[in-house]
Amino acid sequence: MKIQRYKRDGSYSYALGAALTYELLEHAPQSAVKVYVSSATERTPAIVDLLSKCRSLGVPTETNDKAFHILSPKGNCFLICEFRKQEQHIRPGPHVVLVNPSDAGNLGTILRTAAGFGLTDIAVVRPAVDLYDPRTIRASMGAAFHVTVEYFDRIEGYIERFPDNELYAFMLGSSVPIHSVEIASPYSLVFGNEATGLPDEYAQFCRSVVIPHSKEIDSLNLPIAASIAMYEFTKSVWGGGA
Amino acid sequence: MKIQRYKRDGSYSYALGAALTYELLEHAPQSAVKVYVSSATERTPAIVDLLSKCRSLGVPTETNDKAFHILSPKGNCFLICEFRKQEQHIRPGPHVVLVNPSDAGNLGTILRTAAGFGLTDIAVVRPAVDLYDPRTIRASMGAAFHVTVEYFDRIEGYIERFPDNELYAFMLGSSVPIHSVEIASPYSLVFGNEATGLPDEYAQFCRSVVIPHSKEIDSLNLPIAASIAMYEFTKSVWGGGA
Repeated sequence: MKIQRYKRDGSYSYALGAALTYELLEHAPQSAVKVYVSSATERTPAIVDLLSKCRSLGVPTETNDKAFHILSPKGNCFLICEFRKQEQHIRPGPHVVLVNPSDAGNLGTILRTAAGFGLTDIAVVRPAVDLYDPRTIRASMGAAFHVTVEYFDRIEGYIERFPDNELYAFMLGSSVPIHSVEIASPYSLVFGNEATGLPDEYAQFCRSVVIPHSKEIDSLNLPIAASIAMYEFTKSVWGGGA
Repeated sequence: MKIQRYKRDGSYSYALGAALTYELLEHAPQSAVKVYVSSATERTPAIVDLLSKCRSLGVPTETNDKAFHILSPKGNCFLICEFRKQEQHIRPGPHVVLVNPSDAGNLGTILRTAAGFGLTDIAVVRPAVDLYDPRTIRASMGAAFHVTVEYFDRIEGYIERFPDNELYAFMLGSSVPIHSVEIASPYSLVFGNEATGLPDEYAQFCRSVVIPHSKEIDSLNLPIAASIAMYEFTKSVWGGGA
């Protein structure tokens, strides 16, 4: 198989680096296709462990410097795992719903926080950035392999599948601060695009809420707002305490 | 004056783009030195307004394409404001204290959230990333011009200046969830380096606290953790509600 730069419409993607390869083999071994090793890769104990994990999982390894030139031209990566993309289906329960997210780093950061707060089912409404973009995977620090992400063409399709979820739409114009709302179960935390937020009509089928802040800034950035919301809605689960 | 790439030990930095230039002229006009305009800059109403603001503030403007080649080689920027760095001094009150932050994007993002939650005095303990790095300024989306950031060589120097502040140190090993602590006044929210966190000895002179999360991730990323903490400590100010 010829090694190609990542393509959004292709069937494969790449976990760049030993840490992401480890996460992939640990959490989604069935999707691993092959592990590329650079001739510059030092056989540290961690690398030796990883390669032995490949053997025991039946994932072939290949020394191939060309793969690194093509996939990681900056040269700061010594292990690459090629893996098969998989269609995913979220389960009933609390969800995070991202409407038109456009930045790979932001999506990855949100997935990492979501995994941290146990919100492992995430809906993404298109058009949207690609879950399998290697930049998303990297920003997630591997959390992309712990969570389930399902894409929907329209929010209506999501609502039809999960009619029992109470939708909380994060909108700057709302007057309801998130820490004062009653948390329904199951709930969905709904966030809009980085630049444009959610369309006004979301207020018609969602409970609009806001993270109040001063007028010194126009808005919190998307991963920050989403993370604060996930924290506030789940803290009784993780917190103990008050 | 010759236009040079940004240098950490130089006296000047640059706000790249019209939006950051606007923020600078609005919040720190005394530090503006000159505004460079590209020959490709369209005279949109927003740009015309900005140039007229320069005139009324006495900030010279100069059409100079070379400045853009040197300072913004990717060519997606049509206005650059050169400004003078200033030594800053934080005031008594609640603070955010960043110990050895190493990433410009993270520092900028934290400044933006801090401005949003009214925590406008931020201490940074060296070694640390540069406030005036154009990447910090950009990630702050201009909030760097609304807040006061003071660098300290050692945490002891900070504590000597602000002996009345109760220090809350965010440490993964703590068993005290942040939403269960009593909030002293004035308080300091203390965060460590992205990779290494705070040294253990901070538990001796701080109240150690944690944002509880699942074992699916090693830690929240720094701007996320800092933002959740700032939200939790200030929400009674901004929130109304419960």
